[in-house]
Amino acid sequence: MVSLDLIREISRTSPAKIILLVIDGLGGLPHPETGKTELETASTPNLDRLAVKSVCGLIDPVSSGITPGSAPAHLALFGYDPINCNVGRGVLETMGIDFDLEPGDVAARGNFCTVDKASLITDRRAGRISTEKCAELCQLLDGLAIDNVKIFVRPVRDHRFVVVFRGKNLISDVSDSDPQQTGVPPGSVTAFCPEADRLAGIANQFIGRARTTLAGLRPANMVLLRGFSTQPCLPTMGEIYKLKAAAIASYPMYRGLAKLVGMTVLSTGTTIEDEIKTLKQNYADYDFFYLHVKGADAAGEDGDFDRKVKVIEQVDNAFPGLTSLKPDVIVVTGDHSTPATLKGHSWHPVPILLYSKWCRPDGVDEFSESACLRGGLGRFPATQVMPLAMANALKLTKFGA
Amino acid sequence: MVSLDLIREISRTSPAKIILLVIDGLGGLPHPETGKTELETASTPNLDRLAVKSVCGLIDPVSSGITPGSAPAHLALFGYDPINCNVGRGVLETMGIDFDLEPGDVAARGNFCTVDKASLITDRRAGRISTEKCAELCQLLDGLAIDNVKIFVRPVRDHRFVVVFRGKNLISDVSDSDPQQTGVPPGSVTAFCPEADRLAGIANQFIGRARTTLAGLRPANMVLLRGFSTQPCLPTMGEIYKLKAAAIASYPMYRGLAKLVGMTVLSTGTTIEDEIKTLKQNYADYDFFYLHVKGADAAGEDGDFDRKVKVIEQVDNAFPGLTSLKPDVIVVTGDHSTPATLKGHSWHPVPILLYSKWCRPDGVDEFSESACLRGGLGRFPATQVMPLAMANALKLTKFGA
Repeated sequence: MVSLDLIREISRTSPAKIILLVIDGLGGLPHPETGKTELETASTPNLDRLAVKSVCGLIDPVSSGITPGSAPAHLALFGYDPINCNVGRGVLETMGIDFDLEPGDVAARGNFCTVDKASLITDRRAGRISTEKCAELCQLLDGLAIDNVKIFVRPVRDHRFVVVFRGKNLISDVSDSDPQQTGVPPGSVTAFCPEADRLAGIANQFIGRARTTLAGLRPANMVLLRGFSTQPCLPTMGEIYKLKAAAIASYPMYRGLAKLVGMTVLSTGTTIEDEIKTLKQNYADYDFFYLHVKGADAAGEDGDFDRKVKVIEQVDNAFPGLTSLKPDVIVVTGDHSTPATLKGHSWHPVPILLYSKWCRPDGVDEFSESACLRGGLGRFPATQVMPLAMANALKLTKFGA
Repeated sequence: MVSLDLIREISRTSPAKIILLVIDGLGGLPHPETGKTELETASTPNLDRLAVKSVCGLIDPVSSGITPGSAPAHLALFGYDPINCNVGRGVLETMGIDFDLEPGDVAARGNFCTVDKASLITDRRAGRISTEKCAELCQLLDGLAIDNVKIFVRPVRDHRFVVVFRGKNLISDVSDSDPQQTGVPPGSVTAFCPEADRLAGIANQFIGRARTTLAGLRPANMVLLRGFSTQPCLPTMGEIYKLKAAAIASYPMYRGLAKLVGMTVLSTGTTIEDEIKTLKQNYADYDFFYLHVKGADAAGEDGDFDRKVKVIEQVDNAFPGLTSLKPDVIVVTGDHSTPATLKGHSWHPVPILLYSKWCRPDGVDEFSESACLRGGLGRFPATQVMPLAMANALKLTKFGA
């Protein structure tokens, strides 16, 4: 497989426009009664019509048998090695609340917890306090500055929050303070290398202040931190592909991932119609658009086969708004499969459709798992989607003489 | 492709059971008259019936165009990189006679040969003496102890035998003593690094004693050694997959390979019916079973198309005994192809069928090379079989958040 260095070498700018539409959790499994997947059950005349003029296939987000989380699955779609570019838990959680991480920030995931008089943990989740309560407590801890490091504390959901340390020379190679068990005291943060001593010291001071601030409160009277991490320093899509890339996504996590690879994140609404409206408004200003539809994954996770079918039908219904722009390349796929029967992400390959004037159509006349199996793209790693899209936009020059 | 380290990180135990049935040399080539391969010629109603509920495909044991030996082909099926985990010739030969190698043992492959009065080799195979004669000579040399190293000498076949050196600090990085030509004297064993000096010295002493012991005998009056090697220290399948794995195989080489990756090797008979009986008797005690059927490969090697067809039919006939156990995942495949028309192992991809409740069936309704070509698994490296089987048993957790 080619490296991003090679792509960087042979990519060139051109006016051609690429749209990558990611229907989150698109791939599915057959309904036990009908034998048809969600996508096969949905009525998708517009996608089917495009399939006839497209080349189709199936992608493996990470590798055969591997069920990916959203972060590796998306990074792969953007062309990055999803295993080596793994994003830490603290950073992911922070992305998920739309917090604006800066390079060098260290983020950790936190729990409010309960400790007893002997300082032993009795409940790692403080009885799952409400998100509102969590927000109140975060306000008590937010805004500290220790040794020129600014500390942001923001609620996530229930007992969960994030802490972001912003300052110079912060190396995140430190242990968790969360022992992940009860009956023991909260741990302290220890550095795994001398360079991380500074962050470990500041994190422990923060934990000490939190202990003092929360003392006397119930049930949340202490904090546990884990997953200290910084954003991986990835080459941007602008650097690799020479694209001016924009993201249209309503969920924070996906906006965060798009930002991580250097896309401009556009404001948009929550429906596919809103997203296509945003696409139209900004169409002249970018040559790559990543559109993200969350509903299919959410329905799959809930085990709601019919709702997933409906989400796919909504996308199909709005799809002519996208094709009416006559982009040079249209890619429709998912980041991973989320079969309603499994109620979660899965390892199954994901159907993909790639339209361009320069694709070699393959006789596939509908967009579905079984039809894509006969597609001209075959079965291939998701990391190859971007090189293919670039090629079909004539944005990759010849390799070698 | 994912590393075993990643799989080790995301694997988990569960009661789900996986059966991997390896029909050795399964893949074939069309019969010149009928245009059908051995598998396509065989009547396999039971395998065909399971194919309908399964996902099928074709695997490459090592890489496109590479004809593998049994060791790399099997290691790949077990998930190990067949190129980096290569097993030395001495070790392989020793496994093939069911000798119980211990960690640290150094094994070498030996030839009885003929030397003339000037100590020049006149026949590297001593006129291919009989296996019985070879066994007699081995007894003369067996059981020596040199410098606290115990030396085992065991017959293999014809003029071939193995020597196993058992003791402390034996490093196998030494040259062959076999010059692989006649008209020259046998070489001595030389160390490629200082750590291997000890083994080289002991091997040369052994060769000296053999020369003395065999002097005056005809035609075998000397030994040639090559392929000094130790068992590669592989992480076990228990460590990687958290499986309790059992092997059911009647041929020594395959039992040896299974032992090498940490499987428990069960006693069994020589027929597929014996093996399925063993499977049933031990079904409760393990969650992974590797069953090996040798006959198809042996028939292919002999160029006996019809016998290979019959072996496959015997497997199909016994197959309901396996499915009646209702394992969560069933994989049926071969380690490599052995087309009868080629009379040997070949590079052709091998059909594979994977059944689980969670597979995505692909419309393939018979188990054959040509049908598998249309299968949902596509064509993929054999090293991915285990991750796929694990995923389908729901024994792999999500990678990344």
